Amino acid sequence: MKEFNVAILGATGAVGTRMIQQLEQSTIPVKSVKLLASSRSDGKVLQFRGQDITVEETTPDSFNGIDLVLSSAGGSTSKKFLPEAVKRGAVCVDNTSAFRMEKEVPLVIPEVNEKALYDHRGIIANPNCSTIQMVVCLEPIYKKYGLKQVIVSTYQAVSGAGQSALNELMEESQQVLNGEPTDPKILPTKGDKLHYQMAFNLLPQIDVFESDGYYTHEEWKMIHETKKIMLDDMDAKDIKVTATCVRVPIRIAHGESVYFEVADKTATADQIKAALDGADGVVLQDDTAHQFYPQSIEAEGKREIFVGRVRPDFENEGAFNMWVVSDNLLKGAAWNAVQIAERLVADDLVRVPENPYLGEN
Amino acid sequence: MKEFNVAILGATGAVGTRMIQQLEQSTIPVKSVKLLASSRSDGKVLQFRGQDITVEETTPDSFNGIDLVLSSAGGSTSKKFLPEAVKRGAVCVDNTSAFRMEKEVPLVIPEVNEKALYDHRGIIANPNCSTIQMVVCLEPIYKKYGLKQVIVSTYQAVSGAGQSALNELMEESQQVLNGEPTDPKILPTKGDKLHYQMAFNLLPQIDVFESDGYYTHEEWKMIHETKKIMLDDMDAKDIKVTATCVRVPIRIAHGESVYFEVADKTATADQIKAALDGADGVVLQDDTAHQFYPQSIEAEGKREIFVGRVRPDFENEGAFNMWVVSDNLLKGAAWNAVQIAERLVADDLVRVPENPYLGEN
Repeated sequence: MKEFNVAILGATGAVGTRMIQQLEQSTIPVKSVKLLASSRSDGKVLQFRGQDITVEETTPDSFNGIDLVLSSAGGSTSKKFLPEAVKRGAVCVDNTSAFRMEKEVPLVIPEVNEKALYDHRGIIANPNCSTIQMVVCLEPIYKKYGLKQVIVSTYQAVSGAGQSALNELMEESQQVLNGEPTDPKILPTKGDKLHYQMAFNLLPQIDVFESDGYYTHEEWKMIHETKKIMLDDMDAKDIKVTATCVRVPIRIAHGESVYFEVADKTATADQIKAALDGADGVVLQDDTAHQFYPQSIEAEGKREIFVGRVRPDFENEGAFNMWVVSDNLLKGAAWNAVQIAERLVADDLVRVPENPYLGEN
Repeated sequence: MKEFNVAILGATGAVGTRMIQQLEQSTIPVKSVKLLASSRSDGKVLQFRGQDITVEETTPDSFNGIDLVLSSAGGSTSKKFLPEAVKRGAVCVDNTSAFRMEKEVPLVIPEVNEKALYDHRGIIANPNCSTIQMVVCLEPIYKKYGLKQVIVSTYQAVSGAGQSALNELMEESQQVLNGEPTDPKILPTKGDKLHYQMAFNLLPQIDVFESDGYYTHEEWKMIHETKKIMLDDMDAKDIKVTATCVRVPIRIAHGESVYFEVADKTATADQIKAALDGADGVVLQDDTAHQFYPQSIEAEGKREIFVGRVRPDFENEGAFNMWVVSDNLLKGAAWNAVQIAERLVADDLVRVPENPYLGEN
């Protein structure tokens, strides 16, 4: 059996450490693991299946001999290094937004559009965390009943902004409990000008605002990534999508309130639940008589997407609401990336084709 | 000038203490204040405008000589005592859900349907907190552009479940920060069977579930109270409303992600903002270029409703999204009640009519 030399780029971050863990638990035959990060983490020692591995600073030649790269080191790092990795023959699964909307780059959720992997040209993009958990639930509904409109409001965990943001939430929470002032430096978005307290607060900004001033980039991603992914697998170009993205003071596992209208107006809530119940990667948690519904603290550390509170909108025929929760660092990031890598291995796609995509637009 | 004897029922709770504070700051000429609660709080001493007032246990005769009652002691207490107060000539503003949907009881937000006060028969109901902040923002939009559909997802503060729930959140938060287990006893809903950790978690249940198992009572309230209030003032019976209510780990000031479709398809986001900007009780905070939008910690302690992130849904003509934040204990409860009382005083309506409503259905 072929074994693979794997590199993890951004290995020391909130997603990177989980990529190591998900790779440890995966079906991929791993020959060697190289852990790459910025010069700040150079020399740090992490473990893979019990073995110490020293983190190295990333250079183009770090990818010599590598078959598979899992990247979560930020968009600019991916833009700089993934073309170098592809040139050296490595297939890259990128968790950043650097290449997601490029037409040469498949944007893949294995449960939804695995077949797009067959068209890869060296780089495969992992969708945004909040997009993944919604689309995996919409897919089985779309297949059975069609889909006309989606309106989503997100309740996003702070770990989506990285480990330092998570540390900031915990520090601020203690300061508030102590009656002390807070000193926010990161949230809502590291790259933006102003920073606000996250502890015991709600921030309706994730990522920077688009130039029109209306949508944040996170909202833009939910709308446009959803369309790209669903179009891959379906004739879904007429699905209307609107998103409002809000950061809430929880650590892990985004919540999403999803309103959707199906094409088949005879569909019932029980049928929608049945479609979700058997769906790949989805766990239905819907028993309101016993107060059973998805909760963030229960979803933490799990690979599945949990859905509940499925109910009809009594005022709009064919309209429903549901509540979707998933670990944003696992299915929303590290697990989806490793899952893509598993499928690449299973389908014998871990090779760069003759016309590689090297990041040019 | 006539002066009024005022009783506050449930004076020691999260809303009751704020009723005292809002009454202190109101324009109502107060002759005396009586603070009423259950036997548990009997003998406790609170202040009104610098004067000590001893809390008394509520009995029917507590209301002898009272002109005006502000009640926030729970639905069963209101059902038991407010008819007694009305019999004794007191006009009651009730913050519980006990009488809200009774046709003999006006359900009033002064900015929206003040004129319904003229039909009162002794009891006036204060709407649910999450309903109030949404409807005050929808009203000026409805008046100018019509309204066809509203889809709301709430981000509700823990203080909405009372002072003991707020204490539970703070205790649990410290336990999580200490790495200790939590021991939830109140949330999501004191009256329900199971209790879950609220700290660093999301709970898609507020109040108990309706018998059909689909909606929570909080969601039911948002749908049906909105219709009752808007019908009072407008020919709005065809507005479709859907709600998803979620409790989030913040202390005060609910957030709401509101999607709405107006009837006038030529309306622009700038026109919607202009309608909100001048509206009674509303403060527009919408300047995304400077990361300016409503935040819960900024709304705490303020009477106004803050709205921002007003933006068009580019895929649906005439559809918009907005983000609404308000102090659930003030405009959502204590201030709206005192504001109703102010209008009753100003309009000379602090008297029980000849056909009082005594709680019979």
